[in-house]
Amino acid sequence: MIDVESANRAAVERMTSSRPMLIGVEKASSVVPGLSGRVLLHAGPPLPWARMSGPLRGAIIGAAIYEGWAKDAAEAASLAERGEIAFDSCHHHGAVGPMAGVISPSMAVYVVEDRAHGGRSFSNLNEGYGKVLRYGAYSSEVLERLRWMNETMAPVLAAALDRAGGIDVKALVAEALHMGDEGHNRNKAGSLLYLKLLAPHLGPVSPGAAVAAEVARFIGDNALSVLNPVMAACKAMADAAHGVEGSTLVSTMARNGTDFGIRVSGLGGRWFTGPSAVPEGLYFAGFSGADANPDIGDSTITETAGIGAFAMAAAPAIVTFVGGRSADARAATLEMYEITVAEHPSFTIPALGFRGTPVGIDLRKVVELGVTPRVNTGIAHREAGVGQIGAGLVRPPIELFEQALEAFAERYGFAGG
Amino acid sequence: MIDVESANRAAVERMTSSRPMLIGVEKASSVVPGLSGRVLLHAGPPLPWARMSGPLRGAIIGAAIYEGWAKDAAEAASLAERGEIAFDSCHHHGAVGPMAGVISPSMAVYVVEDRAHGGRSFSNLNEGYGKVLRYGAYSSEVLERLRWMNETMAPVLAAALDRAGGIDVKALVAEALHMGDEGHNRNKAGSLLYLKLLAPHLGPVSPGAAVAAEVARFIGDNALSVLNPVMAACKAMADAAHGVEGSTLVSTMARNGTDFGIRVSGLGGRWFTGPSAVPEGLYFAGFSGADANPDIGDSTITETAGIGAFAMAAAPAIVTFVGGRSADARAATLEMYEITVAEHPSFTIPALGFRGTPVGIDLRKVVELGVTPRVNTGIAHREAGVGQIGAGLVRPPIELFEQALEAFAERYGFAGG
Repeated sequence: MIDVESANRAAVERMTSSRPMLIGVEKASSVVPGLSGRVLLHAGPPLPWARMSGPLRGAIIGAAIYEGWAKDAAEAASLAERGEIAFDSCHHHGAVGPMAGVISPSMAVYVVEDRAHGGRSFSNLNEGYGKVLRYGAYSSEVLERLRWMNETMAPVLAAALDRAGGIDVKALVAEALHMGDEGHNRNKAGSLLYLKLLAPHLGPVSPGAAVAAEVARFIGDNALSVLNPVMAACKAMADAAHGVEGSTLVSTMARNGTDFGIRVSGLGGRWFTGPSAVPEGLYFAGFSGADANPDIGDSTITETAGIGAFAMAAAPAIVTFVGGRSADARAATLEMYEITVAEHPSFTIPALGFRGTPVGIDLRKVVELGVTPRVNTGIAHREAGVGQIGAGLVRPPIELFEQALEAFAERYGFAGG
Repeated sequence: MIDVESANRAAVERMTSSRPMLIGVEKASSVVPGLSGRVLLHAGPPLPWARMSGPLRGAIIGAAIYEGWAKDAAEAASLAERGEIAFDSCHHHGAVGPMAGVISPSMAVYVVEDRAHGGRSFSNLNEGYGKVLRYGAYSSEVLERLRWMNETMAPVLAAALDRAGGIDVKALVAEALHMGDEGHNRNKAGSLLYLKLLAPHLGPVSPGAAVAAEVARFIGDNALSVLNPVMAACKAMADAAHGVEGSTLVSTMARNGTDFGIRVSGLGGRWFTGPSAVPEGLYFAGFSGADANPDIGDSTITETAGIGAFAMAAAPAIVTFVGGRSADARAATLEMYEITVAEHPSFTIPALGFRGTPVGIDLRKVVELGVTPRVNTGIAHREAGVGQIGAGLVRPPIELFEQALEAFAERYGFAGG
């Protein structure tokens, strides 16, 4: 009989001992496996165009125009409808992207290497706030920013990272958790640490002081700059824990704006999916829950790896963007200890006496206690072309975990008691 | 009869409404009133060479060599002994300096302007950790760093601040308190915010990318970079509250390594002094309390203005440098509400439900409750030339507050009931 406890210990040990280094920035088609031709990757479990929500469609339209496959939204939508653009889940290509998570072949991606277990993971570059592709906006302003990011900023970041000898993302996250970040919705400190590590290299590698200054300002002014490298690092940690025979550890949580999907370490590549919920949270002026799209994005990889909502006790100031009182932030972390198998040896929370964050979601505990993982998230407008309208909190439906536990019982002949 | 309550409300309102802007970096002799010729300013209340402790003497020796008044330590000490160098308290010149706090005429100083009440304040540039002048070290390495800071870095900072249109230090501190800083011993987030605001300007104003890179690295790698501008800002806030007739608010707390001194809003320029204590804290490897100098520095201006130890609940990670458990950090802030007259409208603590920091120390409450202000501090070796050996916590002696309250009773004809 398989020993689920040991398998989960092995899996979480692989997750927490992963050592993700940010080693570069490259053109997606040259490093992301299988990303060539008219292929677009997106967040969450795979789904066809017909089932995609507004913001995901918006991001796909933007990417198709950006790639020069279509001249406008109508043409892009028509290509997508006729099956002339292939879609796949980022997660199938070692990649993760926040919100719509659309990665097209000519976009630049961060490259993270796991120095402990091998393996590489990828994420796109963060665009900042407001009207941005990842929230489904695709106006000319959005595409111009993408062009500047990919053509001007990306080579500077690549050369600066190279000159810096890479960045230890795990060390950066550990420090940021001592500075009021939770690593998902709040990456203020992490983004400044990222700027600090890059800043001495920007001038020497840039084509002139003006470009170095623009990059420093773009990275420094965007409190989510480091979210994407952090997500790629969490993907590396989660992937390290994936594929452990007999383990009930959740190794993926991701949403595509229609479905919430999870995968389980001991159950291979199979997705368990169910309807994605609308987050509860704070809306920007002029918007309400009626405008909100169901939850979207791969950024739940942070909670999968033991940060984000799981580390909220480290980030009481986050309630100013996601709602609630600062005591709720502490309660969120305390609750997540109930459904996880370990306390993170590297990610600690000063306000809890330096206790490690809850890490390694055990499917069995989720089902047994009826406590689903907490997720912090941004909120996209439900229509293509609008963008972000708020931020809040959400949970995956319990059905996903019930389905997965049934599949585990079938695969291993028992439910892992 | 004078209304002490109203006077204190007026004084603390002036303190918390002060709006300190960091507007420039200038040569001390050109902006600090009365700093010309062979004059050195130092931290804390005034005292003669004969009573100065090792680290203050060390910093004075270093400054005298730096200024070219002496060729070595023996000659510098001899000049000081013979009265050929005049000494005065930084506070008498609108200035504050951490630890020894020595400011010499040719050193660069930060210039802060209070946009709400007028008035200017000054502080020197932060040298980083370890063997540094402010801890009494004066080796050639220390003096070379000072030379680079004053001759190469200072003009770049001056031009960058000018190009940035100044920096709102109050907004910076408010944000840093939401990022795990307390603004005195822990200025990690604040220093990164400072770097972020400077970074886009360094390239365009520097004589070449290499200098811009060196400055970015020096500011970014020193988690106390922003301490000195923050101290100058706190000096501006404290000065705004000084001189209110009938107020028992403490408007200065400062130590010179021999004496701890305080001044009171309603009692003019008079210092009340008593012996400075040795801090309790964590020592670097190879050092202990037996090596420690009594507490030194003007950095207690942070506690005077409602941050530092008063804001420790915002900075639970600080216990890794000052000792204790993270719950102690929370308790420190809660205790300080007992001896203060207000909660700061701009400096809030997420972990306490965004309660304002305790601000405005009331002499009467200190004496009545027997609760002295808490202070976070660095620890200097007791001998000249060594440097920092740890960090910890200290309190001023209660006698200072008793003396001041007596003086208040004499001056106003009653003790302010």
